[in-house]
Amino acid sequence: MEVTRRNFKDSLNAVYSAIEEADFLAIDGEFSGISDGPNVSALTNGLDTPEERYTKLKKHSMDFLLFQFGICTFTYDQTKSKYIIKPFNFYIFPKPFNRTSPDIKFICQSSSIDFLASQGFDFNKVFCNGIPYLNQEEEAQLREQTEERRNQHANGVGTPSYISPSSSKGPAHVPEEHKDFINRVIEKVEALFTNSEKTLDLEPCTGFQRKLIYQTLNWKGFTWKPSRQKRLERKERFIQVSKVDDEERKRREQQKLEKEQEELNDAVGFSRVVHAISKSGKLVVGHNMLLDVMHTIHQFYCPLPEDLQDFKEVTMCVFPRLLDTKLMASTQPFKEMITNTSLAELEKQLKEGPFKSPQVETAEGFPSYDTAQEQLHEAGYDAYITGLCFVSMANYLGSFLTPPKAYISARSKLIEPFFNKLFLMRIIDIPYLNITGPDLQPKRDHVLYVTFPKEWKTSDLYQLFSAFGNIQVSWIDDTSAFVSLSQTDQVQIAMNTSRYAESYRIQTYAEYIQAKQEKEKSGQTPKTWGEDGWVKSHYSSTTSAGFGYPRSGLSPIPDDDEEEEEEEEEGGSPEGIDLANNSEGTVTWQQATTRKGQKNKKKKTDG
Amino acid sequence: MEVTRRNFKDSLNAVYSAIEEADFLAIDGEFSGISDGPNVSALTNGLDTPEERYTKLKKHSMDFLLFQFGICTFTYDQTKSKYIIKPFNFYIFPKPFNRTSPDIKFICQSSSIDFLASQGFDFNKVFCNGIPYLNQEEEAQLREQTEERRNQHANGVGTPSYISPSSSKGPAHVPEEHKDFINRVIEKVEALFTNSEKTLDLEPCTGFQRKLIYQTLNWKGFTWKPSRQKRLERKERFIQVSKVDDEERKRREQQKLEKEQEELNDAVGFSRVVHAISKSGKLVVGHNMLLDVMHTIHQFYCPLPEDLQDFKEVTMCVFPRLLDTKLMASTQPFKEMITNTSLAELEKQLKEGPFKSPQVETAEGFPSYDTAQEQLHEAGYDAYITGLCFVSMANYLGSFLTPPKAYISARSKLIEPFFNKLFLMRIIDIPYLNITGPDLQPKRDHVLYVTFPKEWKTSDLYQLFSAFGNIQVSWIDDTSAFVSLSQTDQVQIAMNTSRYAESYRIQTYAEYIQAKQEKEKSGQTPKTWGEDGWVKSHYSSTTSAGFGYPRSGLSPIPDDDEEEEEEEEEGGSPEGIDLANNSEGTVTWQQATTRKGQKNKKKKTDG
Repeated sequence: MEVTRRNFKDSLNAVYSAIEEADFLAIDGEFSGISDGPNVSALTNGLDTPEERYTKLKKHSMDFLLFQFGICTFTYDQTKSKYIIKPFNFYIFPKPFNRTSPDIKFICQSSSIDFLASQGFDFNKVFCNGIPYLNQEEEAQLREQTEERRNQHANGVGTPSYISPSSSKGPAHVPEEHKDFINRVIEKVEALFTNSEKTLDLEPCTGFQRKLIYQTLNWKGFTWKPSRQKRLERKERFIQVSKVDDEERKRREQQKLEKEQEELNDAVGFSRVVHAISKSGKLVVGHNMLLDVMHTIHQFYCPLPEDLQDFKEVTMCVFPRLLDTKLMASTQPFKEMITNTSLAELEKQLKEGPFKSPQVETAEGFPSYDTAQEQLHEAGYDAYITGLCFVSMANYLGSFLTPPKAYISARSKLIEPFFNKLFLMRIIDIPYLNITGPDLQPKRDHVLYVTFPKEWKTSDLYQLFSAFGNIQVSWIDDTSAFVSLSQTDQVQIAMNTSRYAESYRIQTYAEYIQAKQEKEKSGQTPKTWGEDGWVKSHYSSTTSAGFGYPRSGLSPIPDDDEEEEEEEEEGGSPEGIDLANNSEGTVTWQQATTRKGQKNKKKKTDG
Repeated sequence: MEVTRRNFKDSLNAVYSAIEEADFLAIDGEFSGISDGPNVSALTNGLDTPEERYTKLKKHSMDFLLFQFGICTFTYDQTKSKYIIKPFNFYIFPKPFNRTSPDIKFICQSSSIDFLASQGFDFNKVFCNGIPYLNQEEEAQLREQTEERRNQHANGVGTPSYISPSSSKGPAHVPEEHKDFINRVIEKVEALFTNSEKTLDLEPCTGFQRKLIYQTLNWKGFTWKPSRQKRLERKERFIQVSKVDDEERKRREQQKLEKEQEELNDAVGFSRVVHAISKSGKLVVGHNMLLDVMHTIHQFYCPLPEDLQDFKEVTMCVFPRLLDTKLMASTQPFKEMITNTSLAELEKQLKEGPFKSPQVETAEGFPSYDTAQEQLHEAGYDAYITGLCFVSMANYLGSFLTPPKAYISARSKLIEPFFNKLFLMRIIDIPYLNITGPDLQPKRDHVLYVTFPKEWKTSDLYQLFSAFGNIQVSWIDDTSAFVSLSQTDQVQIAMNTSRYAESYRIQTYAEYIQAKQEKEKSGQTPKTWGEDGWVKSHYSSTTSAGFGYPRSGLSPIPDDDEEEEEEEEEGGSPEGIDLANNSEGTVTWQQATTRKGQKNKKKKTDG
């Protein structure tokens, strides 16, 4: 079901009950871009720590807009032995709801926009009919404002028809030339409140005088009602002042309260759906979902915390139970059977033996998706096939039971090992971010941090370390890289050889980490990107309009499916993960060469 | 005529000849936002210097995208005694044209996008079918790359069918495990070039081996042609190597050159239209056109220079003759007759006496606009009515001649006083930016720079200066403002009184400017915005993808027509300008009160 601002209110109950009845739900987001700084390969260094990766994504990905949000709810029907699904595709846009609401700015990345355009994405639906939203702080502010107005109201300050936040603060500053006019108005209004008339026509006035009248009468505490009149024949505008009796006032106030409440709910908009997911505590499934989770929290809850640990805690509050199908597919027992974990490929592989396509039925009133006619990169469709992938893999686990079971529920103990572990793109030796506990700390004793002149290419590094056999290179920026040796005992030899080198410098990984931590402690911003990269100070902000500071650059479009940040067909795909016993990943030569090619390209266009 | 990527190439000749034959042309741009920092009122302080205004616009407006460009050419037909017009409405989008091209990021401002959406703007046309563009540096880089490839080519390095910038740089680094394979390939290919065979089938290989083969053979200098083959029955892929004879090679090279040239022109895209306008030297008319000019230069020529004087020089190269209808309408003899200079209102007023609606005819094959059915904020339409306004005002000048003339050409001496003077929004005493000379330097002896606690409101300032009669307040940020006294000799009295004040501080305008200049000289970034404003350091960048650093904030949407940055109906409209004898503008009380209201609103939502 497609949901825009036009049908949002009418669809909300359907959304709520779909979430309420679901066994689990799958989500997916589409964004206006991926990285406002480095290209995606530099954003995802193979030897990032989880903290580094989180910091980079927070810094370079959060100023894009999550503008399409897909939810597909899956409810198992015992009698039919199949899942009943309800897919929703929401269009999201931060339409300012009044003059004091935040005027959000977001970044668009041309390559991402162009990619979505090529997939038939409807930008008009987003920008013209997107559902608004507020994060929790903005919502609280708005509620406070409304509350404040009500109180003024209850105290007889402020008027039912003209509310100005500044109007009740004190006497209006009346400029000399208007004083006579205003005094005459006050006298007349005072007279009105002592005689039996119901209304009073004031003299014609300008817009500015009108403002002064409102401010003065409100401050003086009259219970009155203005009505703007126009003497057509003379083209003059004047105000008619009416005394307001108690009953009418109460009725108006009640109407106004109700209208305000509705406007407030409208402004909170799509955030209400996210709150409902959150409150339901249901299992939320996504594919390669770290960015989706980060964006969801950032946009609909609060600006992301600086610290990874705080992020994990917030995440557990918002999504108490998460499952990442990319991580699941990269883990035993699936990793041996699944060669490509990109969503589209995974979905295809899980249709073939030993897996079984899950039996699903689209609930009545929902348009059904056809997996044969791929609608990839529509968030609702992606959420749908993500759910299918989860069901296939979960059911496959049932085949190991005695007796085997064909249906494994979302509450089964069998899938618990996969809970709350979010896939980490292209990190060699840390397959996932562990939301509910400490992250894996692989030994990186065999890793060297090398700095060198910016003319160096991957081949120079291979030459430098040619004595050490097979090495792996992970570029950090133009003048530094991690070099993983195949044997840890070679590290000391490499260090010794480098002692007198002038053109390059080698540190152990431990030294590198220590130096970095010291820099951070001493308050220096760590230099994460190279000279022609994107060194930037980062201001944290208290509203979701916070912006990163991208510096321009000729950044090559990554080879792979950037939108989804999927792995390339050849190369980067991890060797598979065993959750119990984490394998040490390897970078293939292919990867190193690709990286080198990119670096060369960059040099060429920069030069 | 609507022009997108789909019909751009086919329309180009029509565009060129329209420009070539025109007497003058009118332009207009639509942007994805106006300010990524302060709200528009703070961006346009009434006492900005031209340098300050330029710096603020450069910093806070250039990271938005100019995504619709309107051109309307006007050609006078003597026989018909009317203008023949050709309106064009171009959709612009920086679609990356290849993997090494810049991946432009641009900001969208929700309020601007929402405003355009409400006007029926078609975002899909921009994002799906926008015409690409390159600035001059990007174009030069691309030409250089192409040239380089041709040279490699001419030297027999590189292949006609497989170009990799890195391929000819040196021997491929062949990993140990592939060395045997590659050596076998080299032997076979060497044999091919000594025997009479034309082709050679290599062994099946992986993608990575394929890359190594390409790199090695290219580096070895073989003149060969690869063709990827697939043995369907065995699902194996292998390469067929063909010897390339001289004639075929030349033919292929020629084809390739032509294709490259065409691709290059496609990539330069809309910039070609701007170059044509520029080369034509024709009078270019716009309404309140400073931002249009800045964006056009920034997007299609070069990043804007730091210095205002340099900007003026660049502007004169790009647009040798400009005329701003908003400035013209605010200047004698028009200022007495025109009460509202916003484009829509101006167009209406110029239809009534003593002005005459110009006689125009839409050229054949162009859809005609109807001014009765306003299509405001479509760039092509806005350009059209801007041209109409210019013609009406120019012709009116003819009535002062003896004998009076009903038609005044775009080359008439009568309009020369209006050339190259761009309207400056809301500056009290400097009505325009003088592109071809020094700017006006009004005396600001009567202006004080006041700093105070952030709780202060306009009324506090009025109270402080109550002894001095009528004053004018121009807010700078939450803790500072300019206060203009009505008499210069009061300045010294105010300074003396303030000497022992603790809560506030007063400087003369001259002192303020001096302190600012010293700060700038000493390399400090001037603090332009207040604590909860947008203090930001600004990195300049060498490509058009340069980004400002907006800090989020709850910025009220300005009351007036933000898209066009038109004046409000009441208040801000300048008193009119006499180009010969610049009047001292005044801020009305209305303005001050409006500003105060905004400040209060801001406080409320921030709190």
